[in-house]
Amino acid sequence: MAQNEKGKLIIISGPSGVGKSTVISRIMSMRDDVCFSISVTTRKPRKGETEGRDYFFVTPERFSEMVAGNLLLEHAEYVGNSYGTPFEYVECKRNEGYHVVLDIEVNGAAQVRACAPESIMVFILPPGAKELERRLRSRKTDSEEKIQERLRQAKDECAEAHVYDYIVINDDPDMAAKELDSIITAEECRAAERLKYVKEVLIS
Amino acid sequence: MAQNEKGKLIIISGPSGVGKSTVISRIMSMRDDVCFSISVTTRKPRKGETEGRDYFFVTPERFSEMVAGNLLLEHAEYVGNSYGTPFEYVECKRNEGYHVVLDIEVNGAAQVRACAPESIMVFILPPGAKELERRLRSRKTDSEEKIQERLRQAKDECAEAHVYDYIVINDDPDMAAKELDSIITAEECRAAERLKYVKEVLIS
Repeated sequence: MAQNEKGKLIIISGPSGVGKSTVISRIMSMRDDVCFSISVTTRKPRKGETEGRDYFFVTPERFSEMVAGNLLLEHAEYVGNSYGTPFEYVECKRNEGYHVVLDIEVNGAAQVRACAPESIMVFILPPGAKELERRLRSRKTDSEEKIQERLRQAKDECAEAHVYDYIVINDDPDMAAKELDSIITAEECRAAERLKYVKEVLIS
Repeated sequence: MAQNEKGKLIIISGPSGVGKSTVISRIMSMRDDVCFSISVTTRKPRKGETEGRDYFFVTPERFSEMVAGNLLLEHAEYVGNSYGTPFEYVECKRNEGYHVVLDIEVNGAAQVRACAPESIMVFILPPGAKELERRLRSRKTDSEEKIQERLRQAKDECAEAHVYDYIVINDDPDMAAKELDSIITAEECRAAERLKYVKEVLIS
């Protein structure tokens, strides 16, 4: 159940292959006060994808309007399509008390932080470069060239981990999800978040 | 087991009757990387108390020397005896990898923070003034006057809760210990603590 207070904005980044989606799906099964942000995209819906569940599907014109109107927390192009995080949807869920998780890359994370300085930035790090390479190879979908490119990109992304608030090492997804759970709980315990309870003790 | 990195210094404060010692003993049974600081005192040992387990017992002269030599993180007088937190003992345990918990009042906490700005300050708050009064009365050891004095003092202490990093509400000691556990885990995940793992990914 969502709590009474405004939920937090939790930015999750990490290199391709590190297991972000696994960690995010575990945290969502652990806590019912966490939800995942739904992106806006100009991409056409794929079979089985539902508007408002998988994505908000919009025309390129509408997407441009949203960018111009500052309606997106961040946006980026990927393989010819635009993707963005809708500010209003995130605010609405946060006001319902949900902690909203965004899975975005390093540049998008910096855009969100600029709009929402209170956001909590978590970087998911692989336990080592060798292990990341092993995970990328185990997918068996990419060419050797593609794997090398992903590894270079991964190192570029990891080089930005120091700007994040927290680093979770995904050696084991259950441990990583437990760490993420602790981060969320600790952020709920921040003194600034609980001053109203102090007031209650003082005035009664 | 203590971890490889230097352990953290965790300051716990909260009004008399809030249940600090219960929460501390629970966290120590939950985590084997947490230990409790042993104070130096000029008080005479009571029956059953052991040097180096309950306290370090010293003469008033030695205590004064320790204060003059900056060997104490904080010190205070209580009912004619002096009590202090020995810097060396705390450092030694932290270097072994233990997170060291100090149970100290608001003034002592400020002294420790001044010496050790990296310390993590946690305030344990009662769920309400009424409940604190009930807990103080349930001890059945204090006079009405003493209870009223403790309640006034409790409110004075709670008024300082805003300078702490975290506030844990002790409604249920198991929940409070779980929150404290999350705070420690989250602090272990701070990006600054994990930069060496980032380097490992980057150089391999």
